[in-house]
Amino acid sequence: MIDTPHLVDQYCHGVLRTELGLGTFEARLGAHLGGAEALPAAGTTFFDTQTGFAVRRWCPPFLGLEPHCPPARYLARRRELGAAEAGRRLLRASGISTYLVDTGLPGDLTRPAELAAAGAAEAHEIVRLEALAERVADASDTVEAFLADLAEAVHGAAADAVAFGSASGVRGGLAALPEPPGPGEVRGAAGRWLAGRAAGGPLTDPVLLRHLLWIAVTAGRPLQLHTEDPAALDGFAAATAGLGADLVVLHRYPYHRAAAHLTGLHPHVYADLGPVLAHTGARAAAVLAEVLERAPFGKLLFSSGAQGLPELHVVAAHAFRSALTRVLGEWVMDGAWSRTDAQRVAEMIAADNARRVYRLAGSR
Amino acid sequence: MIDTPHLVDQYCHGVLRTELGLGTFEARLGAHLGGAEALPAAGTTFFDTQTGFAVRRWCPPFLGLEPHCPPARYLARRRELGAAEAGRRLLRASGISTYLVDTGLPGDLTRPAELAAAGAAEAHEIVRLEALAERVADASDTVEAFLADLAEAVHGAAADAVAFGSASGVRGGLAALPEPPGPGEVRGAAGRWLAGRAAGGPLTDPVLLRHLLWIAVTAGRPLQLHTEDPAALDGFAAATAGLGADLVVLHRYPYHRAAAHLTGLHPHVYADLGPVLAHTGARAAAVLAEVLERAPFGKLLFSSGAQGLPELHVVAAHAFRSALTRVLGEWVMDGAWSRTDAQRVAEMIAADNARRVYRLAGSR
Amino acid sequence: MIDTPHLVDQYCHGVLRTELGLGTFEARLGAHLGGAEALPAAGTTFFDTQTGFAVRRWCPPFLGLEPHCPPARYLARRRELGAAEAGRRLLRASGISTYLVDTGLPGDLTRPAELAAAGAAEAHEIVRLEALAERVADASDTVEAFLADLAEAVHGAAADAVAFGSASGVRGGLAALPEPPGPGEVRGAAGRWLAGRAAGGPLTDPVLLRHLLWIAVTAGRPLQLHTEDPAALDGFAAATAGLGADLVVLHRYPYHRAAAHLTGLHPHVYADLGPVLAHTGARAAAVLAEVLERAPFGKLLFSSGAQGLPELHVVAAHAFRSALTRVLGEWVMDGAWSRTDAQRVAEMIAADNARRVYRLAGSR
Repeated sequence: MIDTPHLVDQYCHGVLRTELGLGTFEARLGAHLGGAEALPAAGTTFFDTQTGFAVRRWCPPFLGLEPHCPPARYLARRRELGAAEAGRRLLRASGISTYLVDTGLPGDLTRPAELAAAGAAEAHEIVRLEALAERVADASDTVEAFLADLAEAVHGAAADAVAFGSASGVRGGLAALPEPPGPGEVRGAAGRWLAGRAAGGPLTDPVLLRHLLWIAVTAGRPLQLHTEDPAALDGFAAATAGLGADLVVLHRYPYHRAAAHLTGLHPHVYADLGPVLAHTGARAAAVLAEVLERAPFGKLLFSSGAQGLPELHVVAAHAFRSALTRVLGEWVMDGAWSRTDAQRVAEMIAADNARRVYRLAGSR
Repeated sequence: MIDTPHLVDQYCHGVLRTELGLGTFEARLGAHLGGAEALPAAGTTFFDTQTGFAVRRWCPPFLGLEPHCPPARYLARRRELGAAEAGRRLLRASGISTYLVDTGLPGDLTRPAELAAAGAAEAHEIVRLEALAERVADASDTVEAFLADLAEAVHGAAADAVAFGSASGVRGGLAALPEPPGPGEVRGAAGRWLAGRAAGGPLTDPVLLRHLLWIAVTAGRPLQLHTEDPAALDGFAAATAGLGADLVVLHRYPYHRAAAHLTGLHPHVYADLGPVLAHTGARAAAVLAEVLERAPFGKLLFSSGAQGLPELHVVAAHAFRSALTRVLGEWVMDGAWSRTDAQRVAEMIAADNARRVYRLAGSR
Repeated sequence: MIDTPHLVDQYCHGVLRTELGLGTFEARLGAHLGGAEALPAAGTTFFDTQTGFAVRRWCPPFLGLEPHCPPARYLARRRELGAAEAGRRLLRASGISTYLVDTGLPGDLTRPAELAAAGAAEAHEIVRLEALAERVADASDTVEAFLADLAEAVHGAAADAVAFGSASGVRGGLAALPEPPGPGEVRGAAGRWLAGRAAGGPLTDPVLLRHLLWIAVTAGRPLQLHTEDPAALDGFAAATAGLGADLVVLHRYPYHRAAAHLTGLHPHVYADLGPVLAHTGARAAAVLAEVLERAPFGKLLFSSGAQGLPELHVVAAHAFRSALTRVLGEWVMDGAWSRTDAQRVAEMIAADNARRVYRLAGSR
């Protein structure tokens, strides 16, 4: 009844090129729960999670198996087909027609063009600010050169990239001090960081992270902010209103209601809703309904948040569509929403809002 | 099945006397999301929210239109009738028989008596403490006179008003220091505030705000406290137990569960539940069910939280009744509650609790 | 359909040996809301809560009465049977076959062996660390003796007890400083505490509380931590990973989602789910579904959290079973979970996870 033929996945990563066994596949499921180093407890497995059950529900049929077949059987079939062919089948079964790909994670992950080809879709890059700053630092000799090159690199990236992303800026001090740091403060922090840094060393200095976010805001591209508790963003959102860059909140469960609420308070703040749906499996409809309580419907953006496994694109897309149909369908049945409004809001969240925010082309 | 013929709206404001166009009406919808200055993002509208959809669901029939008719059509009909006649029809369709009206907001809003006449209902005033203090400051020459007049004004207001309200007391430092400030501290703060203040200047000093709340507590009337996170009230609640004044928590979404929980911890703490229902539209039943998880049922009070639009009284009342019927009806069907208990709890929340807390007359 | 014949109640207290009237019974219902000193507001009663309604739903039939009979009638019948006989009937009707009993609360409560006999079940003791430290302090003359005896007492208790529990360790500073305190710091704190303490005086010193938790971690038994907001535990969880002791989060409503989420982040962190179900009555299925969103299913442990009233064991067990059947049954109907997985996960949460974590014997 609710029809969303083309999805824009507004935040994901590439998929792994390597073949995966039971243990390595399970570790990727766990990464979606507790980060890359998460381990299951002795006597337990990450397959026994909503994400694990959702993968076993939705994915086996696309590889010619029964839903809910055992993990070992699924992975044997996956290796039989090969990671590339399995990935192609899964991605094409997702109904995602545009991927926005954050290229800031390490690992043997497909680049945007490769993901697009495998999925018979479009792909655009989201540039991770920390990684960009680290590359600039590797190539800069002096503090002055670093700071000049950094600003230039951000504005240069804005020409090609569809958005910027920052995973550590909010954690790194933005929550406490939403204003841009002063030039002297920035120079001091840059000097200390560069002096103490080996090539490739990660950017964790809170002053530089804030500086970087403020450069990005002036570059006019949407800025995706990873945050635990969206309330920490309120000050930065207030300070950046009217500057021309939209902020897209990538939040952590269980803060989806707070993220949705925040989008109603500031015209330029949007909320991602993919991963909270993908990772709650059988509860996706319930979680979607919560997100729809307070967010203006023009402020919500579908994504998969997938990292490494094409299965997660499939799960996100199917969980989202199934949840939309159930939630909006019920509201139409109750007379709470009109059918026309329901279909229109579904298309907004599935693709139209993302097309407007990221200025993507047209009708596909 | 669940019947609540008369509602006491324990917290609302007057309605606008002026005619509204699409833009001004939409701004009032947004005020319920993000405050008076909230703007929709380019390419979006506040009509595309649960509140907007709920207005279009419940209100058009009372003006002779189809549910879910387009906003422009609804507003054309509203202007055709005139704001006064449309307001009368809407208010009388709400089933609210008693309004407690917070008169502390600026704007061309009806006063309690006018709201009562339009709605064929009773109305009582809730005095906003900050506004009262500002009026006293306008009329006082010295710090001593101000402080004496302030105490007298609060106790004087308690004779007529049904309750006090404070929108900034919790934010302004109460959360950190739940005790009353000392006399010297209060005199110092009053001196600084009065010296730096032009006539009409707002009260934001945290010491004076705390002082004001403590005066109000001794005046024996219920005190409505606007708060973001009800957890911030825990210290003040503990410090005011047994002093004779009830505290009514007016909380912000998504903290309705925490507010409900707080009412179980302190005998004199109550929770408002109107606006979270009114502003979540199709989700009102789900949100009501959450509020009913932990609050003792004698501690919950219906309200609309309406500001400016009589549509919001209608939406709140209909969303509340429809949610009550669905939630309690389901529990009766499951055998979890008896039918008698369900009807009794419905009446408590709809009106009886408010009648007891605010000492309102009788059976209507 | 979902069958969980034997429950392990992984956290409860004994039941009161004394006869209870309306007022004393109501006070015990309130203790589950707001602590032992909670009072209902004038004009209200704690029977008008989900817990009260759930007691009236589930318990009267086991004493030969109709569900939802008035509280006075229920209590009259209870006194007619006598507290001991009523307790036996109720406990045996709960389907709980193993009780883990926290013996750290004051009051005339049955000890584990007595609870086991009344319930025709097994029982094991959970030793409350604060109480243990206070007993050691009562018997120690010097700081050195106290600290040595304390370590010995904890390790000695680990031989018999099935777990340790701490109600104040997290509140008392652990949240801020997750590392163990240094030896000098501990000696200083112990000296101050012992010097200022009368026999029986409670342990509230944050340094000693942290010290105590770290001793317990090295004793190799699971450690049950009472906490308001599970986020406060994140640092301690990170610091204790791999040390061999599991942490079991006993959380406060409304933080059940955060607790469930935390279990996915650390291999040795588990979450209790009993009391949030028992105390939300008609909403237990909804709350259980939320807990199941993000927790790995191997990390959740049923409990009643019952204190004093055998009615609370009944309510917890019936609410849990009824919620499991509804939630998992619906997911099976939707095709989201397989029937086999649903039955397996139900048994894990009902008993198997607890048997593994607490190393309980076998198949019963």
